[in-house]
Amino acid sequence: MNKVYVVGLGPGSALGMTAAARAALQEADVICGYTVYLDLVAPLFPGKEMRSTPMTKEIDRCRMALELAAEGRTAALVCSGDAGVYGMASPLLELAGNYPMVEVEVVPGVTAALAGAAVLGAPLGHDFCTVSLSDLLTPWEMVEKRLRAAAAGDFVLCLYNPASHRRKDTLRRACEILLDAGLRPDTACGWVRNIARGGQTARLLTLEELHSAELDMFTTVFVGSSETRVQNGCLITPRGYRK
Amino acid sequence: MNKVYVVGLGPGSALGMTAAARAALQEADVICGYTVYLDLVAPLFPGKEMRSTPMTKEIDRCRMALELAAEGRTAALVCSGDAGVYGMASPLLELAGNYPMVEVEVVPGVTAALAGAAVLGAPLGHDFCTVSLSDLLTPWEMVEKRLRAAAAGDFVLCLYNPASHRRKDTLRRACEILLDAGLRPDTACGWVRNIARGGQTARLLTLEELHSAELDMFTTVFVGSSETRVQNGCLITPRGYRK
Repeated sequence: MNKVYVVGLGPGSALGMTAAARAALQEADVICGYTVYLDLVAPLFPGKEMRSTPMTKEIDRCRMALELAAEGRTAALVCSGDAGVYGMASPLLELAGNYPMVEVEVVPGVTAALAGAAVLGAPLGHDFCTVSLSDLLTPWEMVEKRLRAAAAGDFVLCLYNPASHRRKDTLRRACEILLDAGLRPDTACGWVRNIARGGQTARLLTLEELHSAELDMFTTVFVGSSETRVQNGCLITPRGYRK
Repeated sequence: MNKVYVVGLGPGSALGMTAAARAALQEADVICGYTVYLDLVAPLFPGKEMRSTPMTKEIDRCRMALELAAEGRTAALVCSGDAGVYGMASPLLELAGNYPMVEVEVVPGVTAALAGAAVLGAPLGHDFCTVSLSDLLTPWEMVEKRLRAAAAGDFVLCLYNPASHRRKDTLRRACEILLDAGLRPDTACGWVRNIARGGQTARLLTLEELHSAELDMFTTVFVGSSETRVQNGCLITPRGYRK
């Protein structure tokens, strides 16, 4: 069968993987992905063929998986978290048009917004947005526009890619935009690093404190809405508004 | 041990459940939840004690789980999708302050936004918002404010609760707000009903068509950003902006 599974592995360990994700990887003849993610799944499927490409070669990974399926092998392309949220499903499906004989199935997973929220409590209990602070693929003007819109809508905000090797100041700039957009300096925020991996760390803090925080690319950041607060050591957004 | 797990079951079937969710339910002495969700997990844990309350009695379910844990039994409170996104984690953690001896662990799951997106392709490939159209807990003015902010930010939008027994016109009103906010009538949209359950159905359509669609509460709706488009029968939002 000419099939590619695009599989979200969920957070960190095998515990975060869905049964459907595991079944897809089991069925696959070859598992493709970034080395770090292959290292996570390799122990679960001893002897299974694994094919990796460097971190930046994402389009090559998509093409590799599609080529393997075109040759009649069932391929699985793995990503961390969810396959669709800033994941490989989108670029792979864009390329799939060149491989009409290949069937693509996207297998969803627990993205960092959900896994990180569970560590902090329940910050995503009501309407939320995700915004990636990476300006590799998106002009910063669009990032700023999205941050201002999220603030205007009083959304809970989950920030992906708060830093990169190239840029260290994106989170500080994002916090300045949110403060300028009217968010209170004492807005309840939190971050989680290495979600569900060894050395997971998390912290609750205010937006003012977040502004001066030094976080890396392995961290997911949460900025509360006006209703979000810290209670019993947890970051909680009530599901409804106080009547 | 005095412990409550708040467990997101993911979409529909056991295939959508993470290994961590399954392990938490296995460890629990009692599983609490709405009858429909208990029916999903009961076959996986034969003989396990199950306690249900009616749909609307969500606070009672939280209290039930906390009381069981206070009595020294390990309880699991289950919800569909993710435990934190419009789920039970938030109300349970709010009540947990009254049970200082009880430890609460939130086990995340694949929420409808991610599971529905995987069915349609990759609509959540870039920044997105979730908005619940239910005005049971949220004044409609806030729903409208959020919809207008999402439109202003050119976010992909995932709509939960597009209809209820009480209200049939919420989706139509939401579409009118989005059109009034400047979204093009031909904005690429889609919906998925009964995600990962028997009789799953899905459709791609324009915002104009969505405006006149008759959808029920078992449906999750996606409204694309200006970059979202239909390609090879899939709803795709590119991860980056065309240079």
